[in-house]
Amino acid sequence: MLSKVQFLRISATFCAPTPPKRSSFQQIVTFTARFGSRMGSASHTTSSKLLFRQLFEKESSTYTYLLADVSHPDKPALLVDPVDKTVDRDVALVKELGLKLMYAINTHVHADHVTGTGLLKSKVPGVKSIISKASDANADLLLEPGDKICFGSLFLEVRATPGHTQGCVTYVTGDGSEQPQPRMAFTGDALLIRGCGRTDFQGGSSDQLYNSVHSQIFTLPKDTFVYPAHDYKGFSASTVGEEMQYNPRLTKDKETFKSIMANLNLSYPKMIDIAVPANMVCGLQDDETKVVS
Amino acid sequence: MLSKVQFLRISATFCAPTPPKRSSFQQIVTFTARFGSRMGSASHTTSSKLLFRQLFEKESSTYTYLLADVSHPDKPALLVDPVDKTVDRDVALVKELGLKLMYAINTHVHADHVTGTGLLKSKVPGVKSIISKASDANADLLLEPGDKICFGSLFLEVRATPGHTQGCVTYVTGDGSEQPQPRMAFTGDALLIRGCGRTDFQGGSSDQLYNSVHSQIFTLPKDTFVYPAHDYKGFSASTVGEEMQYNPRLTKDKETFKSIMANLNLSYPKMIDIAVPANMVCGLQDDETKVVS
Repeated sequence: MLSKVQFLRISATFCAPTPPKRSSFQQIVTFTARFGSRMGSASHTTSSKLLFRQLFEKESSTYTYLLADVSHPDKPALLVDPVDKTVDRDVALVKELGLKLMYAINTHVHADHVTGTGLLKSKVPGVKSIISKASDANADLLLEPGDKICFGSLFLEVRATPGHTQGCVTYVTGDGSEQPQPRMAFTGDALLIRGCGRTDFQGGSSDQLYNSVHSQIFTLPKDTFVYPAHDYKGFSASTVGEEMQYNPRLTKDKETFKSIMANLNLSYPKMIDIAVPANMVCGLQDDETKVVS
Repeated sequence: MLSKVQFLRISATFCAPTPPKRSSFQQIVTFTARFGSRMGSASHTTSSKLLFRQLFEKESSTYTYLLADVSHPDKPALLVDPVDKTVDRDVALVKELGLKLMYAINTHVHADHVTGTGLLKSKVPGVKSIISKASDANADLLLEPGDKICFGSLFLEVRATPGHTQGCVTYVTGDGSEQPQPRMAFTGDALLIRGCGRTDFQGGSSDQLYNSVHSQIFTLPKDTFVYPAHDYKGFSASTVGEEMQYNPRLTKDKETFKSIMANLNLSYPKMIDIAVPANMVCGLQDDETKVVS
């Protein structure tokens, strides 16, 4: 019998252009099974489908991203990297915009803040938490590279970008005429604007991070927008092309990069002993959330 | 003889679709005079022309906006509401992106931070500072309602939105097939996301602010993006439609709004005695910037 993770992988092959009214995960899978292969052109422009909001939590300088397909009757939505402290803000916004929140997704097990996925599940019925299988954390859906997360006729594809942590992934909007152009990459801590996440804890590896960014992010079209999990200097977005040209670490050769990362002399993350154990279980230590696959 | 302000108003009637290589203010005016009336359709989509970046200064929670026409050979650019403390960041970004910074623009005389326009003029040769004539501040170009600020084939139009201060304006991207769709409104402190600027100093008037927002902003298309000068809760953008529906102050009738604004009991702005005198002269007390009109 197929697990939900495997179902998710099947759903990756198609996002219905005229999906059924109730757009739950299972229904998309069913629709996929009935109608088969990938669609071609779209009647709407990309911008008329995608609602996109960048949200900021200032204590940990974390960006949360809200995406929804507003061309779909249900306006199915997802949140990338929600923070526990700003869950009420995010839930209120989702409600005001008339969206149906389907997924609360993490790019990785964060060490600097507690994820809001568990709280979101408790406040918005039906929301599924998502994280990578490689993270070893609990969630409703565990992703593997190549999986796709559908919301309406839009989707995110999953790229493994370990190195900051062993389970880091980058979510990239779909490639296709119905999908946002330029594409958008939610890079977590793998690639920051003119920087990158540290590699000295949680299974981090500068060697691996270098390979991840170069093979999984820098191979995207240069105009792909880079939306990181954090920024500390007030930048909100970059592009793949910009980071390939100006990232002060990842433009170097691998040995120089590894040397830079080995000599950052960063202090012990003040939240790590609280955040990591909590984030292994959707941010709620007494969480009833279970792995379902 | 026409003043530069009057020249600017003439330039408002047209933004050349294939402008001359050197896109200085005067040249656009000349081009306008030669070729006359407004153009129709564009060969590029809006998104391929406009480079847009939202930048944040966390001490005063100020948003600075970078806009450029990257379809033009010179990539002419402008900054809305730059902050003195982040000028070096902004200049570095402009340089990396290969843009030609033409204008440093304020929505009003800020009371909570010192503007970066003076510093930008000293660091980037040729930059012109811009503010409204009604602000009574000094700048290279002083705007009146209806004026347009051209950069390449894109432009911002000026709408008077006094009430937070006497000289507040909102800059709105152009209306036309070559201009960004949906439109974008840089509202300063007149309209914040689910809020508005205070009205108890600098010639503020809650009566006037109510009229300004309702007549100049809420009359824009509902999908117009609202980009304010500040946000304190981590929101980055809203729309006119959202604020018409959910703004907790400006959805009320005028008398209720005036009562809300009269009872905010806000403390004296800690930066006002430094910021306002500095911002009357582009942020530099010993500035050589002069009014040229």
